[in-house]
Amino acid sequence: MDIYYLTLFPEMYKGVLGSSILKRAEDKGIVNYHMINFRDFSHNKHNKVDDYPYGGGAGMVLKPEPVFEAMDSLKLDNKRVILMCPQGQPFNQKLAEELAEEENIVFINGHYEGYDERIRSLVTDEVSIGDYVLTGGELASMAMTDAIVRLIPDVLSNEKSHQEDSFSTGLLEHPHYTRPREYRGMKVPDVLLSGNHKLIEEWRYEQSLKRTRERRPDLLED
Amino acid sequence: MDIYYLTLFPEMYKGVLGSSILKRAEDKGIVNYHMINFRDFSHNKHNKVDDYPYGGGAGMVLKPEPVFEAMDSLKLDNKRVILMCPQGQPFNQKLAEELAEEENIVFINGHYEGYDERIRSLVTDEVSIGDYVLTGGELASMAMTDAIVRLIPDVLSNEKSHQEDSFSTGLLEHPHYTRPREYRGMKVPDVLLSGNHKLIEEWRYEQSLKRTRERRPDLLED
Repeated sequence: MDIYYLTLFPEMYKGVLGSSILKRAEDKGIVNYHMINFRDFSHNKHNKVDDYPYGGGAGMVLKPEPVFEAMDSLKLDNKRVILMCPQGQPFNQKLAEELAEEENIVFINGHYEGYDERIRSLVTDEVSIGDYVLTGGELASMAMTDAIVRLIPDVLSNEKSHQEDSFSTGLLEHPHYTRPREYRGMKVPDVLLSGNHKLIEEWRYEQSLKRTRERRPDLLED
Repeated sequence: MDIYYLTLFPEMYKGVLGSSILKRAEDKGIVNYHMINFRDFSHNKHNKVDDYPYGGGAGMVLKPEPVFEAMDSLKLDNKRVILMCPQGQPFNQKLAEELAEEENIVFINGHYEGYDERIRSLVTDEVSIGDYVLTGGELASMAMTDAIVRLIPDVLSNEKSHQEDSFSTGLLEHPHYTRPREYRGMKVPDVLLSGNHKLIEEWRYEQSLKRTRERRPDLLED
């Protein structure tokens, strides 16, 4: 998979794309990350990529030309173009699974400013990672990258481990315990020490259900 | 504000905390970021911080001791302790506003593994940034940091700019346009060029409402 980031802050990505499984996925040749600083396509003296909004108001607006020309430069046929914005569809595990099948993903990341509305004509998906406001799309596209890349076969060493994740089963995860058996007065539940796999499975399912009912009843309705 | 990150991957944060407004907030002395690698509290030969789950199953579980001892080392009285996990309450703008008032925030970030359930006894808030699975809590705590820090007074230069954000008003943002008036056949709506501020304001409100109704009717119900 090739992932392209249209961004004014390519250096923001280094720590995240250069660590842990995202780095390993690149080292294994499964994913390539490409940074496109669309300031390189500003074609004006001060490399300006934003301008005042028509109609007035606070804040600046990202100009269309640098983003259109950066997109042209990619020369990609088969691609998903994702605009990170709070107005987009909420990102979820289902969309992560769908995007994990793509060949080319392009993330368009604004920073501070709004997008000139015409930029939306370039886009296949407008996506928001949650109902909160971030300074830019960069962190959102990093979170999406992580959620997507870990689902590509051979990225995680243990295939099983993402099949038991929260959301993949539709329920929140059950509690986990490891050694020691007692820590600061808190004990591991007896059933987990019983060696009875049927009982353990039942207990875990009940706990998953209970936690989902208490915390996220909306997940049970879906 | 002091923000503490309990993490096994402190290097992941560099690009994000070292760029843009998060860096500026630190340079201005408004926020301090502290990295605590809880592997330093593992007290065993191989610096192991995880172990097999009681009761069996795939994946490893984060041991309680390193996290408890890392917390002890902070010696903070007045603090919010946030566990990043998919089972948590969904992060939103309201929680960002609430957390922007705190003195000390501690993020506990797991990576790959589940948390030993006893770690939850240390925590004031369990938070999820969305219904998707990330490899670790790091990206989630970075996104929360960005959403929170930009709300602290004097961090953004233009106070007004975050009051007009999506979610702050309860509606999605209206479309924005900037120069040129026509680009690749797409024109700026006449109303925005009219100079009539009352009409412009009405148009923007209608567009906000329309976009919210089409894309996120759930926001109108709240």
